[in-house]
Amino acid sequence: MKKILMTVEYNGANFHGWQKQKNKRTVQGELEEKIKILTGDEVKVEGSGRTDKGVHALGQVATVDIEKNIPLSNFKTALNKLLSDDVCVKSVKFASSDFHPRFNAKRKTYRYVVSNKRSALEHDLVTYYPHKVDVERMKKASELFLGKHNFKAFCASGATVKDFEREIYGLKITERECKIIFEITGNGFLYNMVRIIVGTLLEIEKIGEENILKAFKEGDRSLVGKTMAPNGLYLKKVEYI
Amino acid sequence: MKKILMTVEYNGANFHGWQKQKNKRTVQGELEEKIKILTGDEVKVEGSGRTDKGVHALGQVATVDIEKNIPLSNFKTALNKLLSDDVCVKSVKFASSDFHPRFNAKRKTYRYVVSNKRSALEHDLVTYYPHKVDVERMKKASELFLGKHNFKAFCASGATVKDFEREIYGLKITERECKIIFEITGNGFLYNMVRIIVGTLLEIEKIGEENILKAFKEGDRSLVGKTMAPNGLYLKKVEYI
Repeated sequence: MKKILMTVEYNGANFHGWQKQKNKRTVQGELEEKIKILTGDEVKVEGSGRTDKGVHALGQVATVDIEKNIPLSNFKTALNKLLSDDVCVKSVKFASSDFHPRFNAKRKTYRYVVSNKRSALEHDLVTYYPHKVDVERMKKASELFLGKHNFKAFCASGATVKDFEREIYGLKITERECKIIFEITGNGFLYNMVRIIVGTLLEIEKIGEENILKAFKEGDRSLVGKTMAPNGLYLKKVEYI
Repeated sequence: MKKILMTVEYNGANFHGWQKQKNKRTVQGELEEKIKILTGDEVKVEGSGRTDKGVHALGQVATVDIEKNIPLSNFKTALNKLLSDDVCVKSVKFASSDFHPRFNAKRKTYRYVVSNKRSALEHDLVTYYPHKVDVERMKKASELFLGKHNFKAFCASGATVKDFEREIYGLKITERECKIIFEITGNGFLYNMVRIIVGTLLEIEKIGEENILKAFKEGDRSLVGKTMAPNGLYLKKVEYI
């Protein structure tokens, strides 16, 4: 038995998210189905975490235990031939048998892309946001998120977690042509947290920096911004050291 | 009655092509449906030509006759709000009543994009082509297509046209990172012509320049390359002067 670690890219537009669900097309389900064809065995694919319907990944990390002795490069090539066009394995390596892609994750980086120009071509890769924004003010306000905070206000209601403290290591905002790209790295993220942080920064002129600080203290979801659509969100990378 | 000319962008992945068909989602059908909602009148949208299922457009040109007096910019804004995310009107202007987007077209430019790196994210925007190609030789061979030729060999069988002569004004090949981009301009294109020309150039080492010349003379489809997939093809622009 060997544990294979895969770095997986996918376009989330035609998936009902990462997590396997009955009668729905999901990334985990697609990987398990195709690895079964390849190896002949029922397998369980573990991911670093779920992604929602419509959310993409550049570097989702997933593991699978394989009984047969298949050379790594053959495994990757053969699996990519079986996988649909909207998901592919970018790299593979062996991991120790006690490695777990979720429990061992130290840092995750998400990217969020908005464009003030409507693009029919990229409709499922970028979120259209035609409103005026103050990018310099957003960049300054983004510093408020750095460090450890109680992110309860930046979490979709109904979440079952009890500990809302998360640490943000970086939040970078860059402009490229008509796009604004957010990249945010932290030790973990609550449900919808990236999408709410981006929604808050885009509306910083309306919301105000003081309400971000107040939201950290009071945990009140109504103080901060909207949950942005899933199509602009990418799980960029997961780090383990 | 006023004739409005629209420049239309669309992602062809989820359309059964341009031309209206019963019970199928098409670009022409979507435009007619949404303009009807906007104006209250049944309308007929005319395009510069069809595009197949999966083929995109950066600048399809289409016209519609409108009875109501709607300011142009309102028409564009309101229509874009009604249209699905994968199609949008980039610009609008009035055209003379006898203008026809197909019969008056003088030049069309198509783009075709291949990548030697598999991209799950861009799976419906780029054609994956992992084979070795000789780009310098392709660039030289592309000059053979310039000018007037009998393109019967570069046309899908079953086409109903009788005149296979077309004139090519330009065929440019550029490399960008792992992509090769073909841009081809001509006075008109036969069915699948761009996709077969690209398939021929990509396999130039196997097919040989002499068979392109022979194909012009003999019109034999089997002398030239494969029909490339629709997902890498874009109708880039249509010119009228």
